[in-house]
Parts: sequence; C-alpha cells; structure tokens
Amino acid sequence: MTLFTAPTDHVPDPTLAHRRADELVTVLAPDGTPLADTDVVVAQTAHAFGFGCIGFELVDHANDRSSDATYDNDFANRWLDVFNIATLPFYWGTFEPEEGAPRTEEMLAAARWFADRGVSVKGHPLVWHTVQPRWLLGRAPEEVERLQRERIRRDVGGFAGLVDTWDAINEAVIMPVFTAEDNAITPLARLKGRVEMIRLAVEEARATNPDVTLLLNDFDMSTAYECLVEAVLEAGIRIDRLGLQSHMHQGYWGEEKTLRILDRFARYGIPIHFTETTLLSGEIMPAHVVDLNDWQVESWPSTPEGEERQADEVERHYRTLLSHPAVEVVNYWGLGDRGMWLGAPGGLLRADGSPKPAYDRLRSLVKGEWWHAPTTLRTDDAGQVRVGGFLGDYEVRLPDGATGSFALTEPGEQATRVRLAG
Amino acid sequence: MTLFTAPTDHVPDPTLAHRRADELVTVLAPDGTPLADTDVVVAQTAHAFGFGCIGFELVDHANDRSSDATYDNDFANRWLDVFNIATLPFYWGTFEPEEGAPRTEEMLAAARWFADRGVSVKGHPLVWHTVQPRWLLGRAPEEVERLQRERIRRDVGGFAGLVDTWDAINEAVIMPVFTAEDNAITPLARLKGRVEMIRLAVEEARATNPDVTLLLNDFDMSTAYECLVEAVLEAGIRIDRLGLQSHMHQGYWGEEKTLRILDRFARYGIPIHFTETTLLSGEIMPAHVVDLNDWQVESWPSTPEGEERQADEVERHYRTLLSHPAVEVVNYWGLGDRGMWLGAPGGLLRADGSPKPAYDRLRSLVKGEWWHAPTTLRTDDAGQVRVGGFLGDYEVRLPDGATGSFALTEPGEQATRVRLAG
Repeated sequence: MTLFTAPTDHVPDPTLAHRRADELVTVLAPDGTPLADTDVVVAQTAHAFGFGCIGFELVDHANDRSSDATYDNDFANRWLDVFNIATLPFYWGTFEPEEGAPRTEEMLAAARWFADRGVSVKGHPLVWHTVQPRWLLGRAPEEVERLQRERIRRDVGGFAGLVDTWDAINEAVIMPVFTAEDNAITPLARLKGRVEMIRLAVEEARATNPDVTLLLNDFDMSTAYECLVEAVLEAGIRIDRLGLQSHMHQGYWGEEKTLRILDRFARYGIPIHFTETTLLSGEIMPAHVVDLNDWQVESWPSTPEGEERQADEVERHYRTLLSHPAVEVVNYWGLGDRGMWLGAPGGLLRADGSPKPAYDRLRSLVKGEWWHAPTTLRTDDAGQVRVGGFLGDYEVRLPDGATGSFALTEPGEQATRVRLAG
Repeated sequence: MTLFTAPTDHVPDPTLAHRRADELVTVLAPDGTPLADTDVVVAQTAHAFGFGCIGFELVDHANDRSSDATYDNDFANRWLDVFNIATLPFYWGTFEPEEGAPRTEEMLAAARWFADRGVSVKGHPLVWHTVQPRWLLGRAPEEVERLQRERIRRDVGGFAGLVDTWDAINEAVIMPVFTAEDNAITPLARLKGRVEMIRLAVEEARATNPDVTLLLNDFDMSTAYECLVEAVLEAGIRIDRLGLQSHMHQGYWGEEKTLRILDRFARYGIPIHFTETTLLSGEIMPAHVVDLNDWQVESWPSTPEGEERQADEVERHYRTLLSHPAVEVVNYWGLGDRGMWLGAPGGLLRADGSPKPAYDRLRSLVKGEWWHAPTTLRTDDAGQVRVGGFLGDYEVRLPDGATGSFALTEPGEQATRVRLAG
C-alpha cells in the first residue's frame, strides 16, 4: 500500500547497540588448526561507520605544493587520525575555470593521496547552480545541458575507481528559483524542473560508472526536501543515499530537532549521510539571516567559551547521529578555521593548527570510546575469543608476528573465523 | 526537453486586455435577416472569470432554517450581486459527524440553491487531515484508506451534476508531518506518502465522475509546493487546476510577492485558482505566528482605518490576480465577519451585515469597471454593433422585448452573430 514505508522501524538507540557486534572469533593457526590457550592481540583497524570531512585543504599538500608545509603536515596527520572519508571539491567553476582545461590531474593526485591512506573519497558536486564557470554564462539552455552532461561523464569516468561516490546534485530544492547569483544552471532547472535535473545527473553518472553511489544533497530540511524526495521516487529515479546538510552557524540544532529531521527523512528507506556539518566555536550568526552567505563579517574569532560549547555540541551531535540506525556517514565541513567558509570559527583546529577541545572530544569518541584499541585476549581451548566492538575491520596478532584480519559486519552476537599468516 | 515549460509565456498585463474582447456582433432579426440601423440594448449577464466566495454561511438559509432571516436575506443578495462561484464545506468531520449519516440532503439543497441562481459550486475538500470525524480515530490505516476512498466516491457521485469541481486534497505538503491535532489521515499520509494520497483522491474522484475538475490546494507557497507539483506531474497524475491559498492575516502580500508567486506556479502550465483569499479590516496578526490557528484573541474588531486599508488591498489584490493570464478564479474566504475563521475581521461585510468599503470597492470592479452594463447601441446598415467588454455572457434586447444571447469567449478582435427571438 505504500512506496515509502521504511523496511524497518528506525528507533534511535543511544547505546549504539546497532553499531556494535559481540563476535565469537575462532583464531586458526597458519596450518588451519584452532589456536587454543594463546595470548593474541586484537585491534580495530577501521570503522565501518563513515567519519568524513572535507579534504579541500589537503589538495595542495597532496600535490606537493604546500605553501606552509609544517602546518599542512600536522593538519594532514590530525585529519587522518580521525577521518576515513574525504569530500573533494569538484565545483565546476573551480574545477574547470577555463573551458576545456579541467584540473583533473591535481584532483586525481589528491584522490590518490587519500586512497593510499585508506580514505575513501566522495566528489562534490556534479550539478549545482553556484560556483559556476564564468564561460557558461550566456549559453543557450540546450548547450548548457549538453555541457553539463558531458562534464558529468568526463569526471565520473575519469575518477572511476578512485571516486565512486558523488553528490550527484546539490541543493536542487532551490535550484530553479535561486536568484542570488547569475548562473546558467538555474534557467535550465527552471525549464526542465528539479526532477529532470536530478534525472540528468543520475542517468549520466550511472551510465558512465554503473557502480557509482549517488547522493541527493540539500540544506533545506523543510517539507520541500521531503516533497522532492517523493518526486524522485515517484519518477523511478534511484538515489543511493540521502544527503542532509547541517551547517549550524545559527546554533546547534539540539537532539530533539536532529532526531525529528532524521525521523522524517529516514522513512524513505534510503540510508542517510549527514554531508555537511558545521558547529562554531565563536559567536552564533543571528537567526534573521536566511542565506548564510549574506553574513559577511570582518573577523569571527574562536573564543574559549565558544570552544567549550563547540566540544559539547560536537559530542552531542555525533552521539545523536550515530544513535539513529539510518545514518551511515557524518561529514564535518572543514577541519581547520584557516580558510573556512564565511571566515567562521567552525573548524576543529584553530587557524594556527592547534586542536580545539572539539577535536580532542571527537577523537576521543572515534578512536577512544567507539574504538577497539589493541587488547591482549586469551583464546580458550577451542581457539575462541570474544571481541566486542564497533563494526569495522580488525586484526589479530601474535607476539611472533603472525597476523590475520577479520571484519565485524553485522551487529549483535555473531561468529567468525580468522586464519593467521606470516 | 522539459515537462514543465508553460506553453505560453505569462506576462502580466495590468490593462487586462487578455480578459477583454472587442467583438463585432451581427444582430439578426428572428427571421434571420440582419437588423440594420436599429437601437439595441446590449448587457453583460455573466463573467467568464470566476469571482468566487465561500457559501458556508448560506447553507442554513438555503435549507429554510435561517436563525436570522433578515440578515441572511441581505447577506444572500449581497453575495449574489458579486460572486458567481460558491465553495461549499465538505469537511469530513462536519459533513459526516456520525458514521453513516452524512449531511447529503442539506448540502444538496445548498448546492441547488446556488445553481438555481446561476452560481457554480466547488466542494471543499475531499481529503484533508483536519476537521476529521472523531469516529475515524483509532482505525487501522488500511481501513482509513478504504473509508476515505468510499467517502470520495459517495460524495463525488452523489453531487455529480451539481458539484463538478472539487478541492481533491487540501494541504498535502504538511499532511504527513502535521502534529497540531490527532487525526487518522496524517498516519495514512505518512505511510503512503503525499503523492499517493493525491493519487488516491484523484483516481477515486475521476473514476466516479470523469467530467470532474480537480484541484490541488495548499497554503504553502514555498518551494515545497513546487516540489510537490513536480512530484505529481512526474507521477503522471493529472491535476486540472492549481489552488493557491492567500489568507493574509499577517498583512497584504503586495503586488511584487503576489506576481513572484504566480510566476513560480504558473510555469507548470496548470491554470491557477486563488482558492482562499482573506484580507483584514482590523489589526494584522504578528509575523511570528506560524500556524494561524494559534492566534486566539478575545475580540478582533474591524476598524475605520482598517476598512480603508482593506478596500485598497482588495482592489490591488484582484487587479494583480486578474493581470496574470494564468489566474482563472479568485475565491474570497468569507463575505461577512459574522462567524469568520479565527474571529478575524476578514469579511467584506461587518458583523451586522453592513458593507465595508471593500465590498463596495470589489463590487465596483466586478459589476462596474469590469462589467458591461445595459447600453443602447445602434446597429449599422449590416446589422452590426461593436461590443467591447470582459469575456462572459451577454444579451441583446430590443424595446419590443425580442432578445438574444451571445458570449465573448476569446480575447481581442472577434466576430459573432446573434439571432433574436420572442
């Protein structure tokens, strides 16, 4: 009787039991026999949950043209210590500022840099109405559509294998009625309608890379985005993940609002990415500002009180998001204050690169409370140990150096076997 | 390349040329010969444009059970002097307060009363989440859906021929997330989604009465309603008219906002009805009120300054709406202050039934500036007269009583013939 009923009821669980397994692991010696009564060191090596962040600031570093190597080195280390998904900038206007000369090579280098460090990469975004190339202005809608389609095929194809997740389209809700900035996409969206713009993005991307994971991404948490999601589903367009932005420049949403939004958007049965999260460690932007871009200030400092508040809010926000089973990824929108959007103190590091309390707080969750640090366990006479931990990748190591790896993939009581080697 | 591009560009025209014809009328005598060099009286008898109003207050009067006959008689005369479309209340909760005992007979009497006076009738609404029957609460969603479908078939069928225009569904944007009032429709809408609720309403109504004219109707003028319209079009659901509410309890929108809204919603190529217009002749509700129902005041008087302002705003609003070629109907939401929603002074008559300036102003447009009063014209030697006037029905009359009727159906220079009889 319904198109939208979620297959399961999503009841938020602050204990995060839905993200943990209690795994009975049978450790086998290289010869395949159970390794009974032996001390083994079990350690988590990766999170299944996506702790993401934009990697914009590391593009230069990855291309060996850092303008501040010390800052960038520390920044990179702190980035890699917490995050496992990078969002890279594919804004058409900055990616291809001159027609026919896309910055493919440097972005490939950046994507490889992350991939080499075990970080998966998302491209952001394939279609949007701002940060547009100047050279696109004044072209006829038919040509804009053709060029937009070609650009999707070129970039989704050119980065396949390195970037297989894309924000297919950004802020489609406002796209046809956007007036703040002259651009060539809004007139096209007005002609085609939102749904056909989404179809365009999705069909070109999938035709180029059938294994691609595609997101709708929007800041509009109102019923408008719900209606658009319904429109997309009714149109038979498959969206893999639903992206919800949460730039909280006007103050932390709080648990209640966040869960209400999750409850509304989770009912479409599409896993949710919190794609763009910002929490400030300084003054909050006044509530009367509608387009955040309108808030232009001379200086927007990070303050001691603000940093304490931010740390608490980061912890509360991540705990709330992880408590909801529909959430798969949380992307923080900028590790450092340096160069941040609107000059806002939304980073987890100060402009000098030093960690704010929020950085330590988030790290203490991701690599502390939610992380299985190397722990010595003793196998029983059947070679079994119980490993309780967050879903993700694990390794078992013997003092002699023999190792094996396994993964916790399903929550609750599970069983697996791992055969050591080396 | 597009689903939504309107077939014509809708350029608002304050001269209303798109609503007027300059008609060359050939008047024929009963024997079919041109009536040359003769004085004829040409008079408009009806507007093609829909000047509507709710007819809720006249249901008792039409059923001969008026509690204040003098007031109701005057009210009825004033109503009929300006309006040609009545919206009648089919709120499920008041129409069928006791299960199985719908107030069909009295609503049929009311619809007939209007029809007998040349007024067409719209039913409001077939599906909505408020003013719901108490007896529906607690039923399982499957049963609510079955009962909702049955109620649509029963009422669309029972009133066919008298009521062939319906607000198929009211306020679908908010329907699945509405929380102000416990009801059985919101849970169903949450399960099915908005589009499937709309499909339900439309398919049952059309299956029962293939000639029905169906509206989507909403107060939400944001991008949410645009997205929902796109969803409906993508889903292949035919909507005949797009209903936009305009309860301006928080102040007159002004020409710019009104035209911007019309521009946004006209691009779907669906004729627009301004279904629910209110303008106050008293204090304006504060802007911070989100749900107008939350504004409960002891007394909300009509004031002399307010009445002057209201008259100006009514004139500006109607001129603006008629200037846009996509608008087909404007419904005022309540002729009199007596019994008005929220106790607001939104009527064109005061609570004692006397006309406010806004009533006279609107009448001076509908039956003055935009009306062809009986005028003596002399036919030329070919029996022709030029009739310039608003689209609508006209009659030609001779002093001896012979009459004929014709209609101005297309704007601009046209020609027609009318043969007198009697």
